[in-house]
Amino acid sequence: MLGDPFGSHRVLEPARSLPQAAWRLDNDAARRFDNEIHLAVETLNIDAASFHQMMTASAGKSEGVAELVRQTVRERGKQHNPVTGSGGMLLGRVAWVGAAAKARGFLPGDRVATLASLSLTPLALSAVHAVRPESAQLDVEGTAVVFLSAPMVKVPADLPERLALALCDVAGAVPQVTRHAAPGDRVVVIGAGGRSGLLSCAAARRRVGGGTVIGIEPSDAFASELEALGTCDRVIRADARESLAVREAVMAETGGAEVDFVVSCVTTPGVEPTAILVTRPRGKVYFFAMSTSFTAAALFAEGVSRDIDMYIGNGYVEGHVDATFELVRLQPALYALLARRYG
Amino acid sequence: MLGDPFGSHRVLEPARSLPQAAWRLDNDAARRFDNEIHLAVETLNIDAASFHQMMTASAGKSEGVAELVRQTVRERGKQHNPVTGSGGMLLGRVAWVGAAAKARGFLPGDRVATLASLSLTPLALSAVHAVRPESAQLDVEGTAVVFLSAPMVKVPADLPERLALALCDVAGAVPQVTRHAAPGDRVVVIGAGGRSGLLSCAAARRRVGGGTVIGIEPSDAFASELEALGTCDRVIRADARESLAVREAVMAETGGAEVDFVVSCVTTPGVEPTAILVTRPRGKVYFFAMSTSFTAAALFAEGVSRDIDMYIGNGYVEGHVDATFELVRLQPALYALLARRYG
Repeated sequence: MLGDPFGSHRVLEPARSLPQAAWRLDNDAARRFDNEIHLAVETLNIDAASFHQMMTASAGKSEGVAELVRQTVRERGKQHNPVTGSGGMLLGRVAWVGAAAKARGFLPGDRVATLASLSLTPLALSAVHAVRPESAQLDVEGTAVVFLSAPMVKVPADLPERLALALCDVAGAVPQVTRHAAPGDRVVVIGAGGRSGLLSCAAARRRVGGGTVIGIEPSDAFASELEALGTCDRVIRADARESLAVREAVMAETGGAEVDFVVSCVTTPGVEPTAILVTRPRGKVYFFAMSTSFTAAALFAEGVSRDIDMYIGNGYVEGHVDATFELVRLQPALYALLARRYG
Repeated sequence: MLGDPFGSHRVLEPARSLPQAAWRLDNDAARRFDNEIHLAVETLNIDAASFHQMMTASAGKSEGVAELVRQTVRERGKQHNPVTGSGGMLLGRVAWVGAAAKARGFLPGDRVATLASLSLTPLALSAVHAVRPESAQLDVEGTAVVFLSAPMVKVPADLPERLALALCDVAGAVPQVTRHAAPGDRVVVIGAGGRSGLLSCAAARRRVGGGTVIGIEPSDAFASELEALGTCDRVIRADARESLAVREAVMAETGGAEVDFVVSCVTTPGVEPTAILVTRPRGKVYFFAMSTSFTAAALFAEGVSRDIDMYIGNGYVEGHVDATFELVRLQPALYALLARRYG
């Protein structure tokens, strides 16, 4: 029997909701739908906000966190923290692949990571073996159900596991930059020295060829590391909230031109005006950071008459994880920097 | 002397901020910068939230609102409500056009409406003649400064003034739909019966030709009025938050296909999943409503592996007001409906 590709067949309450919005999911792995994949779960990577909340509620005791996770999963059929509303992701091995999910290319025994949130993933736990506060992880035994629409990747054998997971988390950056930039373009990456910023600069450099890539980065240490990679024509050390100063610095670099494409990877609020003011008329801004304010961007662009396209960052792109792993494998200096910081 | 096109030359404090973020602006119209336009102000259209706050603070007395406006303008050099943070727009006549602003096409005496917010427009008042609570308007005497980047339009002589202003407010819809839809496309408009929805349906119908336009509208009265215009192939009466039900209804209409372009004009939160689930892979969603949640859209698209482009609605498009007035003038039934509701 086929389930709903979005998983509504596993929703217990409220009826007709989608799995993330649902209070409770059916986590019974003995029931099998032909477009599902079932996993033997090994590790839960809890969302940072959720883990912090559970640690606080348990007075810093790991056993308290384990008990809260057991309780949430028992009550909701998923690790969807009822206080923070957030989830995380999980690591495990493929236990069973439904006939209508075989085209996804997973085989029993594959070591995999789910990229869909734990807040929409049916989960049952038989044991919690350890809580590791330093990485916000739990070692567990249990089963999870992956819906047909839920993104999942094989953990590559040739990359350190922590690095691979860190890359999966921002895997949209490389293909989105490749898609939206064009050869010869001028590109600005705001927050260029962080994880998605480094990847965006590398993707932009490869894509624009003889065009221009300018990074904006407030940390001197991060800026120096980015410069050493050679992906940017110029790295500007500046606070991205200083809109006019950043605009002047960028235009000093381009001979007075606004740029074709801006990628915003900054996680602090208040950078929308800066991104908008450095973009040329009919240019594009891609906002990756979850701190982006929809209304701030919309109202500012209108208030200064900027006819530009502004995108809500979409972390899912067909083939995004492979594209990101490939780029990193091909650039030893980038690989080394990412592995040192995030591996 | 030239001012900054974005108006930072009029910012008094804090230094180096942009006019909207500033606490206080220089509203002295005796100082003239060559890329400014100065207006003789006749009417302030106060933002609804701001007007409501001032009425409440004044125990419902109009004179109290007048005094609060005088006080804000005196202290800040702009009608930027310090409690709500919002502004509004204004109506007046062009008093002076700087040499470097002549290319904008305005002449002294032109009756105009500013589309930039009052929260970034230098304003000085010499008198408040009347407060009109029913329309949240004040009749005033004063001067305003319009920066080179601030959008402004001539009030057309052949349209009722209230209708013209109501259309200016959503003037981005027609050109954005025209730009992002293509002949033959399948288009869904969510919130199709409201002001921007009606305009989006009309623009989509004209653009897609033999393609398909489907409207989603919860109000039976609004849905019937939309049907009578003949711009939609089908109007589905549904609550746009019911994602799975709307998806099924749309796909019943298209023979099982997801659509190329979705326009969301709904002002209630929680419609992002619906918009995303009816869009085909590599299709586009244009979010016009200020109630759109950046994170809800980004996380949902990723969680269900939808490789689509999602846009933050930009209300400014080169020539948007003329394009909207022209479309409405050419469609008598649409004109009549809009004039009856919003004129």
